[in-house]
Amino acid sequence: VTRDLSGCGGPRLGIVGGGQLAKMTALAALELGCEVSILERSPASPAAPLSSHYAVGDWNDPETLLRLAERVDVLTLENEFVDAAALAAVAARGHALYPTARSIGLVQDKLTQKQALRAAGLPLPDFAAAESPAEVVAAGEALGWPLVLKARRDGYDGKGNATIEGARDVAAAWARLGGGERDLYVEAFCPFVMELATILTVGQDGRVASYPVVESEQRDHICHLVRAPATVPPRVYRQAEDVAQRAVAAVGGTGSFGVEMFLAPDGRVLVNELAPRVHNSGHYSIEGCATSQFENHVRAVLGLPLGSTDLRASAAVMINLLGHSEGPGWPAGVPEALAVPGVHLHVYGKARSRPGRKMGHVTALGGDPGETEERARRAAAALVFGAIQ
Amino acid sequence: VTRDLSGCGGPRLGIVGGGQLAKMTALAALELGCEVSILERSPASPAAPLSSHYAVGDWNDPETLLRLAERVDVLTLENEFVDAAALAAVAARGHALYPTARSIGLVQDKLTQKQALRAAGLPLPDFAAAESPAEVVAAGEALGWPLVLKARRDGYDGKGNATIEGARDVAAAWARLGGGERDLYVEAFCPFVMELATILTVGQDGRVASYPVVESEQRDHICHLVRAPATVPPRVYRQAEDVAQRAVAAVGGTGSFGVEMFLAPDGRVLVNELAPRVHNSGHYSIEGCATSQFENHVRAVLGLPLGSTDLRASAAVMINLLGHSEGPGWPAGVPEALAVPGVHLHVYGKARSRPGRKMGHVTALGGDPGETEERARRAAAALVFGAIQ
Repeated sequence: VTRDLSGCGGPRLGIVGGGQLAKMTALAALELGCEVSILERSPASPAAPLSSHYAVGDWNDPETLLRLAERVDVLTLENEFVDAAALAAVAARGHALYPTARSIGLVQDKLTQKQALRAAGLPLPDFAAAESPAEVVAAGEALGWPLVLKARRDGYDGKGNATIEGARDVAAAWARLGGGERDLYVEAFCPFVMELATILTVGQDGRVASYPVVESEQRDHICHLVRAPATVPPRVYRQAEDVAQRAVAAVGGTGSFGVEMFLAPDGRVLVNELAPRVHNSGHYSIEGCATSQFENHVRAVLGLPLGSTDLRASAAVMINLLGHSEGPGWPAGVPEALAVPGVHLHVYGKARSRPGRKMGHVTALGGDPGETEERARRAAAALVFGAIQ
Repeated sequence: VTRDLSGCGGPRLGIVGGGQLAKMTALAALELGCEVSILERSPASPAAPLSSHYAVGDWNDPETLLRLAERVDVLTLENEFVDAAALAAVAARGHALYPTARSIGLVQDKLTQKQALRAAGLPLPDFAAAESPAEVVAAGEALGWPLVLKARRDGYDGKGNATIEGARDVAAAWARLGGGERDLYVEAFCPFVMELATILTVGQDGRVASYPVVESEQRDHICHLVRAPATVPPRVYRQAEDVAQRAVAAVGGTGSFGVEMFLAPDGRVLVNELAPRVHNSGHYSIEGCATSQFENHVRAVLGLPLGSTDLRASAAVMINLLGHSEGPGWPAGVPEALAVPGVHLHVYGKARSRPGRKMGHVTALGGDPGETEERARRAAAALVFGAIQ
């Protein structure tokens, strides 16, 4: 669907994917005066209402990607699952694409991602290829149980993961994740005392804008709550900054990157996973930082100077709003949530709520971390997606 | 033009007008999860790319307004020039409309606006009806020269104003403003030491969110620069807050209102003009306040609780970016402007630059007012609309 918009002659940004990350990127791009085009698999999506051109199609098809590329100045991605070969084909035709097909290729296969990080000397949990149940058993004996069996591609929010307690569980986990048809690998289970994360935005000139290191809490493998900044000793904070910078440098590229880390019981910071895109752990930056991860991503892919990542308050707390049950994409409890002082509500505009689906988030800013978190929790608790309204 | 967007079941907001005020309102509404529909006279506008439904038509035609009203939950206005009788017809059919037709009717005729403000006991420059050149001369003799002859309706940014130095200039000014065909009135010329302004957002429950009092500088009758907060003695600051609250109460209604004031040489604060809508003097609130004038306007018209208007920095300075000459709507100098620390750029996305046309604005935040203004000026100076690119 294209609308006849004459445009202002500003940069035309194409986003592959139309979910909430694309929507928040589009909001930042529109504020700057860009025109936004979206390629999505389904005809409705959170980013659809913000696009001047909306194409429905398969983003792994090089021809479909090319048609989007031809109507924009710069192409970027909302997710790392787009086929790297299709992206390389678009780049080979001279289209600007950030992150690069090479970065995406390295990162989208978690095994090659971890190999690249290990090759760059980064600390991370042990891992191994696992091409058969026997190799999983061998890895368990070498690395110790429990072990996490993971899909190499297309896994997110814990989907495509299985924790294996011992050799007797291997066959069932292998079958459940589709081993044989799907490439899998194993990771040592990493006990941790805290999960840390940060966003880095890399400009085209190689300059890096580093966001605060945050603490993230997961529930059922989905980001639940983010506390910015993380309350850790300065040594740990600096180690996390260093690890994140080196991890992003190891895969290379332009734009915003999310780096998830483990703080191990021995005080070491290990890389968990890297996402070559804006990331859930950086949503607090919309209100919490001088320049959001979304605006800096747009600035980066357009070759513009990056903005300050300074926190605008002593504390920012973000809580994800997941669908409770089937229902509309607008929650009950909005008046109650907005009555909580200093709370910002983001409803993504998904057509339907489903249990566990990311439907929106709230961010609270404040002077005291505990009081700020209390307000964020109070607002989040008021909001119910899928309730009878 | 309608796009087939299933929507999330969130509130549907209709905005009459599609300029930069509608665009910034739409950005706030989309972030909250609303669906936005726009009615504009021309097929392209800054708000067009953000709308799920975009109607081209005459906003003074009750039938056209009704068609918009029927597809939304709440109707609001970007400007006060929409015919109040047409609005009343829509409201009479049971559609929610904020501000009300009554407020618009009172405010859109500047003579009745001033009469309402005077009736409420507010201090404002002397004014008088002027139905003939002879009445202008009589007013000049009563109120003193110079005198400002003004169109009662549809004037903005100094359009529809003429300053008259003495009786001999009356005939020419009368002819130039179309006296006879157009209703005019006169105001005493108000010498002032500073222009002040503020935004008030009125919730449906009558609660008022008051933004900081700011200093505004005009150039050629167009808002050029806004300093938040205004550097005036506390007594003056409180007087401005009080005058603004009473002025808004005098016209009544729901949503954001802009109040422009004069600080007279004798230290009194006089009302200059009131706009029943978001206002240029409040653009700094997007980054400068906890909740922007746009988000609070959306919250107000939807009947939601209002957010905090606290400044998020010690100083915020906004500078309007006007078109220098004919050309595209995207400026030269964006990399240079964004290289200035702490500067936020808003390009409205108008198709063409014209001399004096409002094309965008920059806002800088900082700790020191002078240093913040210097950065805003540096960024604004780098940006040229209409330059050969």
